[in-house]
Amino acid sequence: MKEVAVIGVGQTRFGKRRDASLSELAVDALKEAFEDSKIDKKEVKFLSVGNFGLSSEDVSPASIVAEQAGIHGAMLMRCEAACASGSAAFYVAWMAVSSGMFDIAVALGVEKMTEVETPTMIEILGRAGSYFWEFHGFGVTFPAYYALYATAHMNKFGTTEEDLALVAVKNHKYGARNPKAHFQNEITVEEVLSSRTIAWPLKLYDCCPISDGAAAVVLASKEKVKEMGVDTPVWIKGIGVSSDTSTMGNRSDFLGLRASREAAQLAYKMAKVDAKEIEVAEVHDCFTIAEIIAYEDLGFCKKGEGAKLIREGETEIGGKIPVNIDGGLKAKGHPLGATGVSMIAELTKQLREEVEPSRQAPLNKYLALAHNVGGTGQYCYVTVLGR
Amino acid sequence: MKEVAVIGVGQTRFGKRRDASLSELAVDALKEAFEDSKIDKKEVKFLSVGNFGLSSEDVSPASIVAEQAGIHGAMLMRCEAACASGSAAFYVAWMAVSSGMFDIAVALGVEKMTEVETPTMIEILGRAGSYFWEFHGFGVTFPAYYALYATAHMNKFGTTEEDLALVAVKNHKYGARNPKAHFQNEITVEEVLSSRTIAWPLKLYDCCPISDGAAAVVLASKEKVKEMGVDTPVWIKGIGVSSDTSTMGNRSDFLGLRASREAAQLAYKMAKVDAKEIEVAEVHDCFTIAEIIAYEDLGFCKKGEGAKLIREGETEIGGKIPVNIDGGLKAKGHPLGATGVSMIAELTKQLREEVEPSRQAPLNKYLALAHNVGGTGQYCYVTVLGR
Repeated sequence: MKEVAVIGVGQTRFGKRRDASLSELAVDALKEAFEDSKIDKKEVKFLSVGNFGLSSEDVSPASIVAEQAGIHGAMLMRCEAACASGSAAFYVAWMAVSSGMFDIAVALGVEKMTEVETPTMIEILGRAGSYFWEFHGFGVTFPAYYALYATAHMNKFGTTEEDLALVAVKNHKYGARNPKAHFQNEITVEEVLSSRTIAWPLKLYDCCPISDGAAAVVLASKEKVKEMGVDTPVWIKGIGVSSDTSTMGNRSDFLGLRASREAAQLAYKMAKVDAKEIEVAEVHDCFTIAEIIAYEDLGFCKKGEGAKLIREGETEIGGKIPVNIDGGLKAKGHPLGATGVSMIAELTKQLREEVEPSRQAPLNKYLALAHNVGGTGQYCYVTVLGR
Repeated sequence: MKEVAVIGVGQTRFGKRRDASLSELAVDALKEAFEDSKIDKKEVKFLSVGNFGLSSEDVSPASIVAEQAGIHGAMLMRCEAACASGSAAFYVAWMAVSSGMFDIAVALGVEKMTEVETPTMIEILGRAGSYFWEFHGFGVTFPAYYALYATAHMNKFGTTEEDLALVAVKNHKYGARNPKAHFQNEITVEEVLSSRTIAWPLKLYDCCPISDGAAAVVLASKEKVKEMGVDTPVWIKGIGVSSDTSTMGNRSDFLGLRASREAAQLAYKMAKVDAKEIEVAEVHDCFTIAEIIAYEDLGFCKKGEGAKLIREGETEIGGKIPVNIDGGLKAKGHPLGATGVSMIAELTKQLREEVEPSRQAPLNKYLALAHNVGGTGQYCYVTVLGR
């Protein structure tokens, strides 16, 4: 397999983007990524598009986006793995280069969610779990799915509602420093706890918002990196992917995500890296509890000690392992298909030490990790990046 | 890049499958492919699912299908490239093995279309072109898009309505010999010509049906093929993919598909094969005109001579190059996501000389070609297979 590097990234502002269509968001992100990587759009012969899709009228967006972006005659496809659709597109683009078939590949993630009324969107999202059985049969929506994880964790490990709130407070703190975040305001524990209950113990401020946005990354082979004289390539050192049952009732417990643990182990093994060596991470915090169980599943702490990590400030800048210091899904926003690609874009900038100084992670080994979950844990992608 | 072989295939009967859900169709195809390849489902760590999706309530089918099929902890994703979604899934599975990341990969294609009312389905399909401009703006449905190709071809090359009808007659003739085809009845030129006009010059019998169905193929690396002692591996000798604008109005002419020509050239080059050497082909005959222009775009004849080829019987068994001798999209049916995978499944059986004797192509060089188009020609995948 060929070594593959990220040589350019782009991302739009996430949020309610009534000012831009799906393809306009996509083109903005692609343009930024092309400028950043100094490639010409004519060189792009592979474009994968992460997009969940049901909230947009562009039902086959890959060719529409390519046309608008001026990409001609390329391999085009949309990749879908629920909320991990962006990572699926990234994985496919990585294979396109690692296989030796393409020397440059572009992964785009894009989602336009806010044109659909919120109750309809909640209905659409609920289908990304076990549709016929758990959603249609029992009416379990996404906050309710994650509430099951939260109550199991609280019951077994003594995690509290305050612990969950601390995740939201941290992620808003960093979102406030990220001009591309959906929410750029700080919040307090009291505000989280007093926000209205969505699915107990999850309150409104425990949930990520519904956002529009796009992100893009340009990948290149080692030979291409040399040929182009890329200043600061960020290497894909390890990549792991696993899955679990669509039906949550068929899983052994709700204390963590098996797919996350397996994907992380595969990525660490491939990168020959230990969890302790990671210096900055993007994890899938669709709900606050998801970030706490991610700490555990990814090996940033022992099982059951996730709440301790957030309580002790270890996942802030200055702590052991800064997590979601771009705001995370919680504050940066979660335009489904864009999220996985945006994580890679953010970590690339972190490793190049190019983010706003107030949210730059201190680096020594220059190792970063992205963790993107699809659905209720049925898809998981973990990527280890390094310089 | 590693050499990759098809080591097992499966396909359900195509048609109005009110007896089976999307995942039941998928599991049937997968089971057949696993038995054919003699692999255990536990060995499957990569599954790509070709599925367009808007006609089914399973919005994220990859994990649902994997769970039902007993596949655990695999890389899962759905691939979408409109009517070429199955080929997108096949391409990704090929990359998974050719990159060296997986020694076995499975591509599944599945679509459940008949649960949606036909007018709604026509509306959904129309969106796979240029939605905002040509579909929404001018109301161009899929038969109307392809009628533009037909009238251009008739005007420039003198192709007639009878020529188009001959394609339908040929494909029904072979569909009648294929127990898995949606339509298993022969038809006459008169029946085609007197069927009701959908979008002139295309009549009802010039159009492929709306079908349910699934197909699956198991791919393996050369090392795995050796290790398993596979009797008759079918090698992926060449694979090409290209694309064109989503907006038909932005193309230079309607006489053929640029994406088909480019994808074919890439596949021939990689396989080091000339068009004349191909002994059996599956081409994308969503409408009869599409098969005629495919002959030309794939180099089976010169530009403008497609109608001559069908008139002279050269694309029947016994002719120069038998095409769609499983019934094609026209008679076998076109469950969108399943089609591309079904083409590979059919050609694998042809190359193994395992189809019904009445529709087996005579083989000498053992070279076959699959051609799958997405949308109005904005995606195209061409694969050259050989023994």
